[in-house]
Amino acid sequence: MTVDLATDPETLVRRMAAAARAAVDRLAIASTDAKNAALREGAANIRARGADILAANGLDMAEAEQQGLSAALRDRLLLNRTRVEAMAKGLEDIARLADPVGQIIAEWTRPNGLNIARVRVPLGVIGVIYESRPNVTADAAALCLKAGNAVILRGGSESLHSSQAIYEALAAGIKSAGLPEAAVQLVPTRDRAAVGAMLRASDLIDIIVPRGGKSLIERVIAESKVPVIKHLDGICHTYVDGEANLEMARKIVLNAKMRRTGVCGATETLLIDRRAIASHLKPIIADLIAAGCEVRGDETVRSVDREVIPARPEDWDTEYLDAIISVKTVDGVKGAIEHIRRHGSRHTDSIVTDDAKAAETFLKELDSAIVLHNASTQFADGGEFGMGAEIGISTDKLHARGPVGVEQLTSYKYVVRGAGQVRP
Amino acid sequence: MTVDLATDPETLVRRMAAAARAAVDRLAIASTDAKNAALREGAANIRARGADILAANGLDMAEAEQQGLSAALRDRLLLNRTRVEAMAKGLEDIARLADPVGQIIAEWTRPNGLNIARVRVPLGVIGVIYESRPNVTADAAALCLKAGNAVILRGGSESLHSSQAIYEALAAGIKSAGLPEAAVQLVPTRDRAAVGAMLRASDLIDIIVPRGGKSLIERVIAESKVPVIKHLDGICHTYVDGEANLEMARKIVLNAKMRRTGVCGATETLLIDRRAIASHLKPIIADLIAAGCEVRGDETVRSVDREVIPARPEDWDTEYLDAIISVKTVDGVKGAIEHIRRHGSRHTDSIVTDDAKAAETFLKELDSAIVLHNASTQFADGGEFGMGAEIGISTDKLHARGPVGVEQLTSYKYVVRGAGQVRP
Repeated sequence: MTVDLATDPETLVRRMAAAARAAVDRLAIASTDAKNAALREGAANIRARGADILAANGLDMAEAEQQGLSAALRDRLLLNRTRVEAMAKGLEDIARLADPVGQIIAEWTRPNGLNIARVRVPLGVIGVIYESRPNVTADAAALCLKAGNAVILRGGSESLHSSQAIYEALAAGIKSAGLPEAAVQLVPTRDRAAVGAMLRASDLIDIIVPRGGKSLIERVIAESKVPVIKHLDGICHTYVDGEANLEMARKIVLNAKMRRTGVCGATETLLIDRRAIASHLKPIIADLIAAGCEVRGDETVRSVDREVIPARPEDWDTEYLDAIISVKTVDGVKGAIEHIRRHGSRHTDSIVTDDAKAAETFLKELDSAIVLHNASTQFADGGEFGMGAEIGISTDKLHARGPVGVEQLTSYKYVVRGAGQVRP
Repeated sequence: MTVDLATDPETLVRRMAAAARAAVDRLAIASTDAKNAALREGAANIRARGADILAANGLDMAEAEQQGLSAALRDRLLLNRTRVEAMAKGLEDIARLADPVGQIIAEWTRPNGLNIARVRVPLGVIGVIYESRPNVTADAAALCLKAGNAVILRGGSESLHSSQAIYEALAAGIKSAGLPEAAVQLVPTRDRAAVGAMLRASDLIDIIVPRGGKSLIERVIAESKVPVIKHLDGICHTYVDGEANLEMARKIVLNAKMRRTGVCGATETLLIDRRAIASHLKPIIADLIAAGCEVRGDETVRSVDREVIPARPEDWDTEYLDAIISVKTVDGVKGAIEHIRRHGSRHTDSIVTDDAKAAETFLKELDSAIVLHNASTQFADGGEFGMGAEIGISTDKLHARGPVGVEQLTSYKYVVRGAGQVRP
């Protein structure tokens, strides 16, 4: 869509959303081949235009430096050849996923002969609001398109040149595959009022997916009149039971905390069964400290290792996203469940134990999006679940919970086949 | 819960919602037997207290008459022995439904040996806001409870005595089954501010289900900070194709319009293929008129029968919920799809034809919650779908679409079983 940048953001966004809305019926019946061709062509375009994309990213990076963006934010914004290739490969991976649209979720026949099928259909128009991570432009567009949706992308303003270059590569793919151009649109203005306009467009946009940190998501929740699929806190726990295998517990705790500390599935609190203090705690803490992790513990934990810093009450409610862990003594699986219910964020929690009964209690009684037995909380990821790429991990209980992949970006309808039945 | 009626509605509702929230973990792991015992005991109590319930209803009816409520509203409000028995039987029917909680929706094993199961869990706290139909108190409470949820019921103020009497019968059942008393609560005040308080309690209530007419639902949508599962318009169509069997078409159209005119699945517009005008239209219209239906049609339709009134443009967008039908000539299945996309409400639409290809086009290309071939639109109903009772028919695309039964009142979590796996 050609847009006049002089247009005010509200009008601009509503025009884009109306164009998306007008495209949904065609997109819903688009063939799998056409959608995959658009994704593969988009990948080829990203590779072919690699130099242009990097040049655009260079503009963003220069502006970011001028504006004094932090090193962490500049690292998110940065593209290089490896990252460009990863984007292209990501599109090809999504092209290889099964097409969810038209899948029969369930089918049954009634005593009166009516055949009823629950069939997957696209959601419609999805608005994705994200920070200055250019690769999200490609990922989010591809996931939404594969599920037959029209998507309106609104990336962080610092990444506008990069996102625009990536978007143009995708748009050319969509055009060459004969799909509606409004299938993927990028909001072409840095004006933050555009976000507000998206959040108000409940007549045109079916769902908003915010992807980013807490402040972005809180703004979206506060303002949105459109339903939101969101990820809030990931205060994840690993509970080491008295019956845990020591070597397994060491390996899992170290991985759950330290593999990557900035991901939502990273463990923030280690709960240790009072029965395991003498046997398990010392080596587990030693591993963490050796790996560069700061350990904050209660009195009992501190008595085991002098390097443990006293935990303050707020530590039990903190998502560090850093090389810091809080460690608390609990009384068995019931104590662990009680702590997690009070302090957890119902994201991802794991139990390490050889006691099958304790494991089942933990898995059954805790209502987290993901509960694990004898595995690292860092498996909280759509790819690791075998769902292909994901647009995020939902901590909502409605619609989609846990990893949000292509299937979770669909709805369903009922197809009923009869032979003249009328209702008595 | 004992409530002090002098408490302001905001405080009252927040206390009830907090009590519900505190009960969700116990309710989520309540046994199927306990939930079914509560429902059966509730049914027995409703029967045993039938006279008290009818007396309470008598108070409501007397007040309704004083206030000059319309006959239609008074009929909704009225209870009699038959209706009381139907409520009791409804509870027993829900007790017989399969318990959705703990059901494994999908299960797979990853190459690394992780076993992943997607397991149904309750949603949490559900707020149901409905009009002065006392039976909804029993239906909605039972559906929410069966799915392991805590429910806060807010019925129409004219039905408060009746709802209270029914609620007390249910509450005694819940208590005798050993379930938390906060599993089912009824807002004990007529103050409409209580509704606003529910709609603002997004920290305590997971979902609001409004059940009633358009004005109730529009208020809920406008005000709610809590996600809503809602039913909007039901502008349903029956399309009679040129290849339709005449007798089948007559039977289906008559049933789709006239079986009950006030239900959301009633056909409001008949679309007739230009090829079927000469052969099908006259007898179909004659059937409708003979059954007492007012027919409003376009010029072509009027040329067939002089009793047809001219349709105005707004007729194509009107949900009559009455013995009125609009009839329009279209060019084949493509014309029908075009009209329905423009004027329909994506609720329920049916095609009558012996042409399998036209039928598949209609079923595939229309994005309505329910699409039917050779069957009456009046089958739009959870009971008719074999889903047991329903709390309504959702016209949303998120979470639950179409009939909302016990399964649709659940979420899911992922249960992951490992043997020490860590993420590379």
